[in-house]
Amino acid sequence: MSLVIVGSVAFDTIETPEARRERIVGGSCTYSALAASYFTKPKIVAVVGEDFPKTTAAFFKKRGIDLKGLSVIPGGKTFFWEGRYGDDPNQRDTLRLDLNVFNNFQPTLPASYRTPDILFLANIGPALQEHVLAQVKRPRIVAMDTIRHYIETEPEALARVLRKTDIYFANDEEARLMTNERNLIRAGRLLLERGPRLVVLKKGEHGALVFSRDSLFGIMAHPCEGVVDPTGAGDSFAGAFLGYLDRVGNLRVSSIRRAAVYGGVLASLTIEDFGIERYKTLKPADVEDRFQRIKKFVSI
Amino acid sequence: MSLVIVGSVAFDTIETPEARRERIVGGSCTYSALAASYFTKPKIVAVVGEDFPKTTAAFFKKRGIDLKGLSVIPGGKTFFWEGRYGDDPNQRDTLRLDLNVFNNFQPTLPASYRTPDILFLANIGPALQEHVLAQVKRPRIVAMDTIRHYIETEPEALARVLRKTDIYFANDEEARLMTNERNLIRAGRLLLERGPRLVVLKKGEHGALVFSRDSLFGIMAHPCEGVVDPTGAGDSFAGAFLGYLDRVGNLRVSSIRRAAVYGGVLASLTIEDFGIERYKTLKPADVEDRFQRIKKFVSI
Repeated sequence: MSLVIVGSVAFDTIETPEARRERIVGGSCTYSALAASYFTKPKIVAVVGEDFPKTTAAFFKKRGIDLKGLSVIPGGKTFFWEGRYGDDPNQRDTLRLDLNVFNNFQPTLPASYRTPDILFLANIGPALQEHVLAQVKRPRIVAMDTIRHYIETEPEALARVLRKTDIYFANDEEARLMTNERNLIRAGRLLLERGPRLVVLKKGEHGALVFSRDSLFGIMAHPCEGVVDPTGAGDSFAGAFLGYLDRVGNLRVSSIRRAAVYGGVLASLTIEDFGIERYKTLKPADVEDRFQRIKKFVSI
Repeated sequence: MSLVIVGSVAFDTIETPEARRERIVGGSCTYSALAASYFTKPKIVAVVGEDFPKTTAAFFKKRGIDLKGLSVIPGGKTFFWEGRYGDDPNQRDTLRLDLNVFNNFQPTLPASYRTPDILFLANIGPALQEHVLAQVKRPRIVAMDTIRHYIETEPEALARVLRKTDIYFANDEEARLMTNERNLIRAGRLLLERGPRLVVLKKGEHGALVFSRDSLFGIMAHPCEGVVDPTGAGDSFAGAFLGYLDRVGNLRVSSIRRAAVYGGVLASLTIEDFGIERYKTLKPADVEDRFQRIKKFVSI
């Protein structure tokens, strides 16, 4: 199987109640590709400026990530986001957002990217998501994610992408906003009517729910005693979820449930350090160990 | 085994975003005894006024609840609470609270109540909880619950009761208030240091966590599409939890986990109708059916 991920590779400045980090590497594509790399060899589609560190690109390659679809714009500046978390790690404020090289980004996919088994349209504008969709032969699975900004500003384009989506990832706030429904069970079921075969609602410290027409799965989050930096948890969840599905190559109920647990595993590991730091030392055995711990944690 | 429950039997006036009910039967003892009655024959200690409906007392008896410890004060008025829920069923405001017969309540336990295997000190003042504790031969399990009001106004008495407690039930807000710790995993572990062998943190729609020194269990809440009246969910959880433990007669890890699932079962059933209405038609088979559904819902 093969997994193509389209999203942002960025610099993030992050402030938490305890600390601040300036211009560390982040972005939806970064986190989801790193998480997926524990299960498969993801191909990424993204854009960066000349300021993007070569050491980070080398680290991506070492993790088995295919960078043929990563455009480096000469003289360009990499997408920049600055955010601040309060005491509730599920809440954050965006302080600054510079699109930079993303302003005029219209990716042309390398030939080797055009027949993916799984295509993940991570958090980028819905128009860009459609532009990518138009370049691929219908994949077995199209997955997507989005954010509040696009739900509010481009609802029609988003609805079109959603109709072509098999797996939709949303956090609780996004699901409520999309459906105008506070109850997450009802929200999840409503979202199923808009296209996807699977709706994955991520509830941060409260875990996740996976909806399909004939099954509902609930998984608690790993019990974290401390969150260093919540950034990238949702992207890591989606990346691990899809990476695992790409590895097993089927959509059986048991595979989907295990995919969601692996999503929680990578999300909980990511937030143990700032940015992508945790990935620099993370071993496959750590991933398996946490999978077993979560399984034991929720076993009746 | 035997289970004695001490708490309030009350009239509640309840307002939700959809409806309002005046002076329906409620109270911590009521809900926990009804929930426990699906597993054992609880004995209750509480006080009501002459205005308390004989039909309700008859219903309690029919459910196998021992009423020898229920004092009826001639000419007295039953405890009254009025509350309002907003869109978030986990949040509520107390609009009015009349202690009435609870003002001078100093229960004397019937002889048949003084050697319980499990004693549940449900939500009443800590001084009253101590007064009851002093009248019983050390039970195998002392369990307790409390509310924000007593955490704020009687912290010392509460700490004394907690030191004598084996199982402490708290919701997320109470756990944070008790420990001044936002992270619930840390809050749960801190509470374990104050006496209890088990700390049960109820998170409403997000499920529950059960802490012991060497194990941690997380269970999702039953996926409710609609909540009619959240009142009594926490008390029903505790009642079912303890009722189940009373039935199985041991504190094995597997028993504790099943007890927590049954807690979630009765909590989720209770909120499907106003007050204790759901209990009037609830069959043991409904309880088993929901247990199996939750098990399937969280099974990996």
